[in-house]
Amino acid sequence: MAIETLSSNAAHGGTQGVYRHASAMTGTEMTFSVFVPAHTDGAALPVLWYLSGLTCTHANVTEKGEYRAACAEHGVIFIAPDTSPRGEAVPDDDAYDFGKGAGFYVDATEEPWSANFRMKSYIEDELPALIAAEFAVADLSRQGITGHSMGGHGALTIALRNAGRYRSVSAFAPIVSPLHCPWGEKALTGYLGDNRADWRAYDACALIADGARVPEILVDQGAADTFLAEQLKPELLEQACAEAGIDLTLRIQPGYDHSYYFISTFMADHIAWHAARLKA
Amino acid sequence: MAIETLSSNAAHGGTQGVYRHASAMTGTEMTFSVFVPAHTDGAALPVLWYLSGLTCTHANVTEKGEYRAACAEHGVIFIAPDTSPRGEAVPDDDAYDFGKGAGFYVDATEEPWSANFRMKSYIEDELPALIAAEFAVADLSRQGITGHSMGGHGALTIALRNAGRYRSVSAFAPIVSPLHCPWGEKALTGYLGDNRADWRAYDACALIADGARVPEILVDQGAADTFLAEQLKPELLEQACAEAGIDLTLRIQPGYDHSYYFISTFMADHIAWHAARLKA
Repeated sequence: MAIETLSSNAAHGGTQGVYRHASAMTGTEMTFSVFVPAHTDGAALPVLWYLSGLTCTHANVTEKGEYRAACAEHGVIFIAPDTSPRGEAVPDDDAYDFGKGAGFYVDATEEPWSANFRMKSYIEDELPALIAAEFAVADLSRQGITGHSMGGHGALTIALRNAGRYRSVSAFAPIVSPLHCPWGEKALTGYLGDNRADWRAYDACALIADGARVPEILVDQGAADTFLAEQLKPELLEQACAEAGIDLTLRIQPGYDHSYYFISTFMADHIAWHAARLKA
Repeated sequence: MAIETLSSNAAHGGTQGVYRHASAMTGTEMTFSVFVPAHTDGAALPVLWYLSGLTCTHANVTEKGEYRAACAEHGVIFIAPDTSPRGEAVPDDDAYDFGKGAGFYVDATEEPWSANFRMKSYIEDELPALIAAEFAVADLSRQGITGHSMGGHGALTIALRNAGRYRSVSAFAPIVSPLHCPWGEKALTGYLGDNRADWRAYDACALIADGARVPEILVDQGAADTFLAEQLKPELLEQACAEAGIDLTLRIQPGYDHSYYFISTFMADHIAWHAARLKA
């Protein structure tokens, strides 16, 4: 494994890098960003993964997420992967909510998607191994995970499927149940086929109902988010967590929408919350 | 005067807006952004102007500047104008450093630029009047001004030409002397003609040499900025301020470049510095 540095900028006392590598999982080149705070030689810093939403690449949160000051303060590495495979050889769909930019953090089983759209394995296995190999400062025994919208779905489902791997999980305006929203139904039908039982491993509420557990979850959700009622439905997660005894902190934030203005407002809070658990 | 709201997003407890209006000065529509922190009814908050650099619109700093948290903390309104007139009817140049996106905060006297490129009058007169008319919360008796690169040049020259109007002036990697750098020579020749005496009103160092004064200036400059030696030359400002007795704080920041990663790193510092003076 090897990575190519696309850019490296001093920022908030640390280094904001953007990197590219050849992914075996997706069969494409993949780009991701890593912020490493200032640290002493030989230090080992905890890692916070941030999974992005529909239409995004690594760049949206890297530019607009306002995470570096808080990561510098708490000594947390911040990693932002892409949301799908890219490139001319990769199949796509004209819609913004399927195909490129909309990988939904699944391993697709349906043609023509199954060859490249393997974002579950990419995020769970390949990219952490690459980080471990290339970033000696990253302490992968202390990982947290968060994300926005489709990426919040990714964060929740990945944490739930891998009990004990992530010390902390939070989300911004997550899709909590792809089984119960148009975005999810479209994407999972396309990537996984019509058998809805196959979708349950990619649905936070279904995973919880089926016995998956994390100790606690932090979710912020804007009350003025135009996707709230039809796509996001945090009440489903609230119900699933209540039934399972999972400690969910769900904060409905008056006036906030689905944009990076919402995310950046609460980003420092989430980083502090993760840091408290990653450094406990 | 009237403004059209292009977008309005809750952010950091306040409101990030983007607005458009018909400018009499430029003869075009102009777009700008305003962040208004949370405030009580009838409050009057100080204003910090941020002038952007070459190729930028209001959007760069609005998305990447990381100013909202600090403005919310200190109760400061943040206004980001565009860097030039826009539109198909506006003359342009293929280069990135002249024409659209490169207004240099001058009132052009040369054809074909003089009809629209009147950014000095737009920033000094028209936009403040619009803000006063449309934003009752803005206390224009307490204004500060800052900017980046070409916008740092704008901030310094506008503050120097209008002694007493701005309580505070700072800059990120400013062009301190257009008379002594390729960017400045090209732009001022194009907008103002060959008579270099006419340029002195648009050159911070020349203004200071000619007697203009502000009490103090804060400048951050990245040591790894690729434009440092040829275009920015902070040592010229240092010399001019020393000769004039202006209290210049010039901080050369090791490792930092010319990007928004640099700006966003020191933005909160600048806002705190302005707030201390605006609220004194």
